[in-house]
Amino acid sequence: MDMSGARDDRAARGAPAARERLVVIGGDAAGMSAASQARRLRGPGELEIVAFERGHFSSFSACGIPYWVGGDVDERDRLIARTPEEHRARDIDLRMRTEVTEIDVAAGRVRARQVDSGAEYWTSYDKLVIATGARPIRPAMPGADAPGVHGVQTLDDGEALLDTLARARGRRAVVVGAGYIGVEMAEALINRGYEVTVVNRGTEPMSTLDPDMGRLVHEAMAGLGITMVGEAEVTKVLTGEDGRVRAVATQDAEYPADVVVLGIGVRPETGPARAAGLPLGPHGGLLTDLAMRVRGHENIWAGGDCVEVLDLVLGQERYVPLGTHANKHGQVIGTNVGGGYATFPGVVGTAVSKVCDLEIARTGLREKDARRVGLQFETVTIESTSRAGYYPGASPMTVKMLAERRTGRLLGVQIVGREGAAKRVDIAAVALTAGMTAEQMTALDLGYAPPFSPVWDPVLVAARKAAAKVRDGAR
Amino acid sequence: MDMSGARDDRAARGAPAARERLVVIGGDAAGMSAASQARRLRGPGELEIVAFERGHFSSFSACGIPYWVGGDVDERDRLIARTPEEHRARDIDLRMRTEVTEIDVAAGRVRARQVDSGAEYWTSYDKLVIATGARPIRPAMPGADAPGVHGVQTLDDGEALLDTLARARGRRAVVVGAGYIGVEMAEALINRGYEVTVVNRGTEPMSTLDPDMGRLVHEAMAGLGITMVGEAEVTKVLTGEDGRVRAVATQDAEYPADVVVLGIGVRPETGPARAAGLPLGPHGGLLTDLAMRVRGHENIWAGGDCVEVLDLVLGQERYVPLGTHANKHGQVIGTNVGGGYATFPGVVGTAVSKVCDLEIARTGLREKDARRVGLQFETVTIESTSRAGYYPGASPMTVKMLAERRTGRLLGVQIVGREGAAKRVDIAAVALTAGMTAEQMTALDLGYAPPFSPVWDPVLVAARKAAAKVRDGAR
Repeated sequence: MDMSGARDDRAARGAPAARERLVVIGGDAAGMSAASQARRLRGPGELEIVAFERGHFSSFSACGIPYWVGGDVDERDRLIARTPEEHRARDIDLRMRTEVTEIDVAAGRVRARQVDSGAEYWTSYDKLVIATGARPIRPAMPGADAPGVHGVQTLDDGEALLDTLARARGRRAVVVGAGYIGVEMAEALINRGYEVTVVNRGTEPMSTLDPDMGRLVHEAMAGLGITMVGEAEVTKVLTGEDGRVRAVATQDAEYPADVVVLGIGVRPETGPARAAGLPLGPHGGLLTDLAMRVRGHENIWAGGDCVEVLDLVLGQERYVPLGTHANKHGQVIGTNVGGGYATFPGVVGTAVSKVCDLEIARTGLREKDARRVGLQFETVTIESTSRAGYYPGASPMTVKMLAERRTGRLLGVQIVGREGAAKRVDIAAVALTAGMTAEQMTALDLGYAPPFSPVWDPVLVAARKAAAKVRDGAR
Repeated sequence: MDMSGARDDRAARGAPAARERLVVIGGDAAGMSAASQARRLRGPGELEIVAFERGHFSSFSACGIPYWVGGDVDERDRLIARTPEEHRARDIDLRMRTEVTEIDVAAGRVRARQVDSGAEYWTSYDKLVIATGARPIRPAMPGADAPGVHGVQTLDDGEALLDTLARARGRRAVVVGAGYIGVEMAEALINRGYEVTVVNRGTEPMSTLDPDMGRLVHEAMAGLGITMVGEAEVTKVLTGEDGRVRAVATQDAEYPADVVVLGIGVRPETGPARAAGLPLGPHGGLLTDLAMRVRGHENIWAGGDCVEVLDLVLGQERYVPLGTHANKHGQVIGTNVGGGYATFPGVVGTAVSKVCDLEIARTGLREKDARRVGLQFETVTIESTSRAGYYPGASPMTVKMLAERRTGRLLGVQIVGREGAAKRVDIAAVALTAGMTAEQMTALDLGYAPPFSPVWDPVLVAARKAAAKVRDGAR
């Protein structure tokens, strides 16, 4: 690769050599949290911060896009936590629409390309943060790029989708994929008055749940009028004479569509990092140590949707692209880069979502996760209510719990219900982090009052039953 | 005391001596949970169970009374978890309207008195469970027993209060006390269309919170149109010509009242246990070991509102009369009585409540608790929101956190806000149980999605700030 044509902007600008330079690749949650925290700890006289973002926006909430598309959030800019101008006002030299195409680890520099002009230049770094995020999985099939087929990863994606919705002649939407993004987009499109069909590869939606719990989501979504198509692979997007999407084909059937939303997940975006030989894990994400430093590299950190994280229950790395982790990573990286000390110990796999008023939550291991890593376990599933049974608005809640055989250690919890189901999983998330057993959990002093819980919280009911099953299994 | 006139009903009924007899004093949560669990483990051929209840109802939810009075719960019987007939169908000989007036520990028998007839008899026991509950504190002042002055401890109390409300000529209510019962009754009376004045001894309501957090409750209640009178001692209840209450007098003023509700707390009901020389703690409750056995007594257990419990954070016994503990005590006692093994390790002091849509939660120590037991600590108070800031319905939430100096160990959390504030305290309750530090809490993998939480959960925001303050304090 000929680099002679790309000048090094530090040399060109003659920055004082005494000042360290931090380069951040990626202007969203992880990258800009890192930059901001580093700036808090070290002023511009000590640390120069240059950040590159290839898109049009910085620090936006991708998790909020379904709610903007659905109309709950009225305008795009409400999803932007901090604009490029606000970052620059904090002495962070954030360069928008500028992509990093190459990392030269040996020389400590990155090659940047201005997306619009194509101009390229090198920027050297003393410390580097890689926060390149994720890219949506796009199925390799005919018509996948047709007008009317949309991802929902960036604000630009959201704009484009809203534009399609505004022009669409009919009111039929197909959502491909039934994970978090899929179910949230199903809700968004229902809120926009669409007839929604969700086409899903698995038998049940929400493959982050065990199928028996996914079944509850399936039934609730069907009850909301959503057509659920399981065990179906989308093979083709069919277009009309105007070139726009008109239907989605699976191996078995065709589903007419005025709009198609792809919600089939994301992959770590690691192009230049991979080319530079930085270590990647089995899921394609960068591997870091507990301080979020890229393994084997003293002066390179990585965080957010481009890294793998240690799952503390599984005992292995997993890929868990979530904004809440990205923010924590950024905080940890910024602290370390800024001369402090912080670690990200790992995740327990907590995730919550909703479809209309159905709340869905999980933490820890599914049955198949536990089996895969050699754990034996007991499972229980209990039905309870969100409030005292006699209190108005009490609604059913199903809690599934996995506890390890013999030790009784909590391995995972899944909750499906209405109000109060989602955040109840936090009880289990903390218990997992603390390594509690189901038996220990039966004594937890959880908040009780009739408007908020039955006298035995649903999580306690599940813990009692799981503890009993562990004892029985030990006989 | 002459006991010769009271026959022993076991001798009289000629029960087979081989069968053990369990006697339970008190037919509510703790007592009947214990009886039911013992019955599950040991059939009627092995264990005879006799239970005495002096009131008209068994196994009812006292915590539900404010919601029944307020009209949220439409009828009394919905608060009854299990009727006497249902208990009897499970081979529990539950004797209603029968009070135990004496415990003869040496002889292993109790003296029972039928409330209506006055008839007395002795019943011997092999194992005894004391679950005599609590009695409301009634101020010793003129007029405290006047018609129109009500406690809200039993279903009979609720009936009587509803009767007063149905007859009341005016719509002015005074609630004495601003703890859980006081604030819940203020809501109930507002729901019934009353003008409500809450007269409180302290400066701020909810003395289970620190005053700065109680202030938030004060302001919210005032915002709901409730007249809050602090630093006021009720000295007298004034009655009209008909003998019914007409006003409440404090040292400074008079407050007209068509109905007065006493919400000034409860004390352990331990009459016969105390007379029998069973060990009582500094708060007047029975002292038990971890298996809920009365200390020093091999065959006597106690649970529910008549016992003191170990506060795991305080390291001392406290009096915490709550239905959720009573149910756990009953479960533990029944398991042990039935030949199994279970313990109640203690509480961390979690309690939640609401006034209309204001949610109030606390767990662990207040500042004054921590000081009293010699702990030094840092406190932080943060403002956040219940949902992502851009998500509709996001409402303010205030979280206060105490962490121990040097160790950083979590000592307590108080939360005041709207939806999602109450049960969020469970995160801290589990963290307290696990002995986590604020720093450890900053990495907790809590559920995040825009409808349920900002990307940094309010509890995490508080933990970050508390951890930083502990670090700063260590310098």
